[in-house]
Amino acid sequence: MTSPEAREEAVLEAVGKRRELVNEALPEELPIQRPERLYEASRYLLDAGGKRLRPTVLLTTAEALADVDPLSQGYREFPTVDASGQPRAPETIDAMAAAVSVEVIQSFTLIHDDIMDDDDLRRGVPAVHMEYDLETAILAGDTLYSKAFEIMLETGAKPDRTVDALEILATTCTKICEGQSLDVDFEERNDVTPEEYLEMVEQKTAVLYAASACLPAILQGADKETIDALYGYGLDIGRAFQIHDDVLDLTVPSEELGKQRGSDLVENKQTLITVHARDQGLEIEDLVDTEDVDAVTEAEIDAAVAELEAVGSISYANETARDLVDQGKGRLEVLPDNEARELLCDIADYLIERGY
Amino acid sequence: MTSPEAREEAVLEAVGKRRELVNEALPEELPIQRPERLYEASRYLLDAGGKRLRPTVLLTTAEALADVDPLSQGYREFPTVDASGQPRAPETIDAMAAAVSVEVIQSFTLIHDDIMDDDDLRRGVPAVHMEYDLETAILAGDTLYSKAFEIMLETGAKPDRTVDALEILATTCTKICEGQSLDVDFEERNDVTPEEYLEMVEQKTAVLYAASACLPAILQGADKETIDALYGYGLDIGRAFQIHDDVLDLTVPSEELGKQRGSDLVENKQTLITVHARDQGLEIEDLVDTEDVDAVTEAEIDAAVAELEAVGSISYANETARDLVDQGKGRLEVLPDNEARELLCDIADYLIERGY
Repeated sequence: MTSPEAREEAVLEAVGKRRELVNEALPEELPIQRPERLYEASRYLLDAGGKRLRPTVLLTTAEALADVDPLSQGYREFPTVDASGQPRAPETIDAMAAAVSVEVIQSFTLIHDDIMDDDDLRRGVPAVHMEYDLETAILAGDTLYSKAFEIMLETGAKPDRTVDALEILATTCTKICEGQSLDVDFEERNDVTPEEYLEMVEQKTAVLYAASACLPAILQGADKETIDALYGYGLDIGRAFQIHDDVLDLTVPSEELGKQRGSDLVENKQTLITVHARDQGLEIEDLVDTEDVDAVTEAEIDAAVAELEAVGSISYANETARDLVDQGKGRLEVLPDNEARELLCDIADYLIERGY
Repeated sequence: MTSPEAREEAVLEAVGKRRELVNEALPEELPIQRPERLYEASRYLLDAGGKRLRPTVLLTTAEALADVDPLSQGYREFPTVDASGQPRAPETIDAMAAAVSVEVIQSFTLIHDDIMDDDDLRRGVPAVHMEYDLETAILAGDTLYSKAFEIMLETGAKPDRTVDALEILATTCTKICEGQSLDVDFEERNDVTPEEYLEMVEQKTAVLYAASACLPAILQGADKETIDALYGYGLDIGRAFQIHDDVLDLTVPSEELGKQRGSDLVENKQTLITVHARDQGLEIEDLVDTEDVDAVTEAEIDAAVAELEAVGSISYANETARDLVDQGKGRLEVLPDNEARELLCDIADYLIERGY
């Protein structure tokens, strides 16, 4: 058995190599063209970094499905297999186009979310509406939105599979909007239940992981059982990812987060942690006095975190994330037993073990 | 020969009947569902009215292509023809879904444009960001965006044609964003040429007319010559539509416009009229003293319009629009000679003869 440290290092290396390839592909799929300022603004957040976790899930799922060794095949001309796992050479798909499309959707949602949430910083740099202006940020997001569809149309998959891929992309975007709407509504409410919170997270965050995981199956023409299992894997790990993100917002130093630690608490954002703590009788609104992220002190955040820990809410969030990851990993048995499938399990673990 | 009045009345009736059918289909394709506030905001502007000109162009083009009498066939199960014009019964398409998709895109762009242009009124009612708030308006637009793709996926056309339809929808949205970006940039410039203005209008406005006109041809599997001719017709009448809109902004009383007359001048928006007038040596920036739409007087607007008329700029805009409409009508010869084709010609005329 491999040590946890060695496993995490292997995941980071695997994610890192795919990130490099995605970073190379992004300017190919999204060149700066006229009107330049619009495309520069559209690329600004993408170029600022990001772990490229969703594209990595997509590319690794493609490898597991095709039963090929990780990184052994070029993603631009990726082999396809039929429903029984037999190769369909010379039919190939551009898996990288699908991966970039998903990352572009993610970037569009971040740009618009930062406007809606009035967040000034993202990935340690100014949000697009701060670096440029509100008008440009709205328009940059809108441009990425249609570009993601254009890019997904370029995988070279057969028309019926392309239609299915576009359908999952469109319904995913709709669900992300619905989830963001619930998230905004929740800020005005103090009676959100854990079930409601998890529904919101599923729509706002997890569906894009789900789409990433099942898109290679759709584009390759896999059977419904496989597509559904991969979608479920993505939903599980996506929810776990968001729950872990909420934990990190409370526990990771501001400089590592790239924004103020505890900002969710200050802005009265619902998380699984606060929803659970309220059930334990804690007065969430009183945990932090200010509603101004720039005015809050580290000591105030420390005290709030201690109270949340005392009622077991942070442990509860960690356990829920762990259960979801284990459930998601179980769904991967539908895939051939190979190295890429192992990697998908390790990525799932990494999503809730990462420190930032 | 029919009198101009009788022709205009016939067009208004034809547009009106299709508008009723589109208005019936809209809530079917876009029901109010959870989260209700998001869907209510998404429907708000659509429900406030609109002439449904783009869906009307789409539905009438479908009739001309299939060589059927206007309104003789249900749009939900519309007959298709092969490249030589022979019916392909029992293959039908849902032309209404395509028409609604185009109108939904139009509504999404209006919601986001009103935020960017800081316009408080639209169709005589508060803009979505005024009736709701900025966050909800951004999100309502984003929701309509993906819903338009979902709806376009439901025409029942063959997968390869659906892929082509989605491609035209995606590239159209990208161009609309590019055009809006140019429009915003132009507000900061005072050296925009007529060519640049027409390029902006093509991208911002005309491409959606072009998509509306050629989508039935794409969905029915018409030949490239037909698709291209219809796209050209849409580009021509769409540019003419926008130029006429710019004229109306100066000449129609505020109460009929649903917003302050002359607001383009006040906000220093470029139009073909101002670009031409500047070429004639007029100081456009001095035409209206204020930059506040609420502060401008009718007398100031009247004086500005008189100056623009004196240098021939309003006539120039009217003539350019007329030339474009005539060019667009000429392209329709690719269609069978039938009543629906006549109606497409009349619609083109109506776009530059309408009084509001």
